[in-house]
Amino acid sequence: MVGTISASEGISTNELQLALRNSGMPLEALRWPLTPPGLHYLLCHYDIPMVDVDAWRLELTGRVAQPAVFSLGELKQRETVTVPVTMECAGNDRARMTPRPVSQPWLGEAIGTAAWTGTPLAGLLREAGVSEEGTEVLFTALDCGIEGGIRQAYARSLPISEALEADAILAWGIGDVALAPQHGFPLRLVVPGWYGMTHVKWLRQVTVLDAPFDGYQQTQGYRIRDSPDEPGEPVTRILPRALMVPPGIPDFMTRRRFVASGTHRLEGRAWTGWGEVTRVQVSVTGGERWDDAELGDAVGRHAWRGWSYVWLATEAGDYQLACRAWDSAGNVQPLEPQWNLGGYANNAVQRMAVTVTAG
Amino acid sequence: MVGTISASEGISTNELQLALRNSGMPLEALRWPLTPPGLHYLLCHYDIPMVDVDAWRLELTGRVAQPAVFSLGELKQRETVTVPVTMECAGNDRARMTPRPVSQPWLGEAIGTAAWTGTPLAGLLREAGVSEEGTEVLFTALDCGIEGGIRQAYARSLPISEALEADAILAWGIGDVALAPQHGFPLRLVVPGWYGMTHVKWLRQVTVLDAPFDGYQQTQGYRIRDSPDEPGEPVTRILPRALMVPPGIPDFMTRRRFVASGTHRLEGRAWTGWGEVTRVQVSVTGGERWDDAELGDAVGRHAWRGWSYVWLATEAGDYQLACRAWDSAGNVQPLEPQWNLGGYANNAVQRMAVTVTAG
Repeated sequence: MVGTISASEGISTNELQLALRNSGMPLEALRWPLTPPGLHYLLCHYDIPMVDVDAWRLELTGRVAQPAVFSLGELKQRETVTVPVTMECAGNDRARMTPRPVSQPWLGEAIGTAAWTGTPLAGLLREAGVSEEGTEVLFTALDCGIEGGIRQAYARSLPISEALEADAILAWGIGDVALAPQHGFPLRLVVPGWYGMTHVKWLRQVTVLDAPFDGYQQTQGYRIRDSPDEPGEPVTRILPRALMVPPGIPDFMTRRRFVASGTHRLEGRAWTGWGEVTRVQVSVTGGERWDDAELGDAVGRHAWRGWSYVWLATEAGDYQLACRAWDSAGNVQPLEPQWNLGGYANNAVQRMAVTVTAG
Repeated sequence: MVGTISASEGISTNELQLALRNSGMPLEALRWPLTPPGLHYLLCHYDIPMVDVDAWRLELTGRVAQPAVFSLGELKQRETVTVPVTMECAGNDRARMTPRPVSQPWLGEAIGTAAWTGTPLAGLLREAGVSEEGTEVLFTALDCGIEGGIRQAYARSLPISEALEADAILAWGIGDVALAPQHGFPLRLVVPGWYGMTHVKWLRQVTVLDAPFDGYQQTQGYRIRDSPDEPGEPVTRILPRALMVPPGIPDFMTRRRFVASGTHRLEGRAWTGWGEVTRVQVSVTGGERWDDAELGDAVGRHAWRGWSYVWLATEAGDYQLACRAWDSAGNVQPLEPQWNLGGYANNAVQRMAVTVTAG
């Protein structure tokens, strides 16, 4: 975070460079229950490493009774699971905040659902014997860079309870295909329900700590705070969000949508990292009036569920559509962004401009 | 094209929306001879269609003796080739032009090389019997939208000579993997050496014409011109370009590069749609002095070739690196962008800011 920019100013070259390196999921891809390969959102802080898998090893160390080193082949001989997980960047929709926090300028498309294949983290930790002093597990990656003036390898920690109980996996594939380089080849962490910064890619070390990790990505980045002087609260689990497939056809330049007057089935997906989605509502009046959408099944316990709503778009004119989700923890999407310095966890409702044309 | 924006103004929301939908190849991926799946650049004018391949057919029609309709299975029984092709968006590096043409704001990363698998277009056309009046072949896609105020399906034509002689293929895969939806599933055109707008995705119809196609993407879009009043010249084959793998490590926000003082092997790739790359030069002095790079083999007759250069970065300080390519047709990259209204075919040399730190 280097600061903020007023809403009237355009996107800076630094932000554009990030937007062109990182990639969002075009929202029409919400049609697929599992995001097609290459359309899952992607954010890499530094460079994508080119890893020699024969030389690569995962080191498990720190406050464990039996430190160990694993080749990829050794990990693949362990218990293997495939878990559909909806992932979202903590900075999703950051560029809709005012003033705009300067970083990757997402507009809502930093999402995706993949069926990650790997071995449960908890099993590995239990086998190694976590000592009683163990309070956090640190995940250290191969990618290096400079951020906030500090030279670092990307690294994040998880509370020991989450590492042992949150269904986290060490993943080497999507379905039965090896991880693409940009998704963390040969091994990444996947922690269902947590924002994307948690799912450390290009893992090289797992370390059980007996004190809080104080690295940049834990204490500087990914904190909800209003000024750099506050410690703030850590970003953790994904707040609920519903998104809709853009109806009709787009204008190339403005992305405004055009549909012919008539009856349209709006559809989308909704997810949360706090339990399950219990309700989705749709407004075709810019938020004045809300109706319940019909909920479909979840793609998995840790993945989005579909929803649909029949829109009687009988009158030509300009409309603003919106949708919002509730979850079983009692969270509901706010109508407006909740500003914070880093632009994190903005789950304000999606709004979509649609022109209905005479049949 | 709706206009231009002065260099001092930031990127507009319309441009940002496009930058987040479309995706570039992060330049460190130049390390791979074939771009890893999901890292190949992607530009979709409208929405990515979700195609039911069982219902899908390709129609071959127009000025041919034997019109025909093909299922994907029928096409796959034909002669099959796999051809590595370097592809580049015609608008690559548009955002470095001043004033900036308003469209997808690329900064140089709209590239990729894939081994496309499909059947030669020429065989299909010859078998159908192109009539003597046939002058162009029109390729019509399934994706629809509005552009320049005109509702359209994406469509582009090729001169009949290129359709018969340019090694064009109708591709259903990359290597032995089916096309991803965003790359044109179930079938796309690939025309080696031509800019990306030519490689029509989500094909539904191939039509032999006896007159020039006057659709939007042929007569309005993809023309080199200085004002909307000129007809301009069509964008065709790819001009030469060399790009380098960014050396060292990045700063997250600025993407500036940092390397320790010492000897560094700079490496990259170079390509052209006009014959072959014959020479690559590198400057470590911001373009004051140029040295020849060592050329590697091409990945294929229609794909980029590697190059490398040993940089004796002995003095700490700030440097501007640059590289440029020549081709066998006598083209060389210009030092500065050649401005045009649509921001097409900008192959000005890449420049990269690097800080050498004391060893």
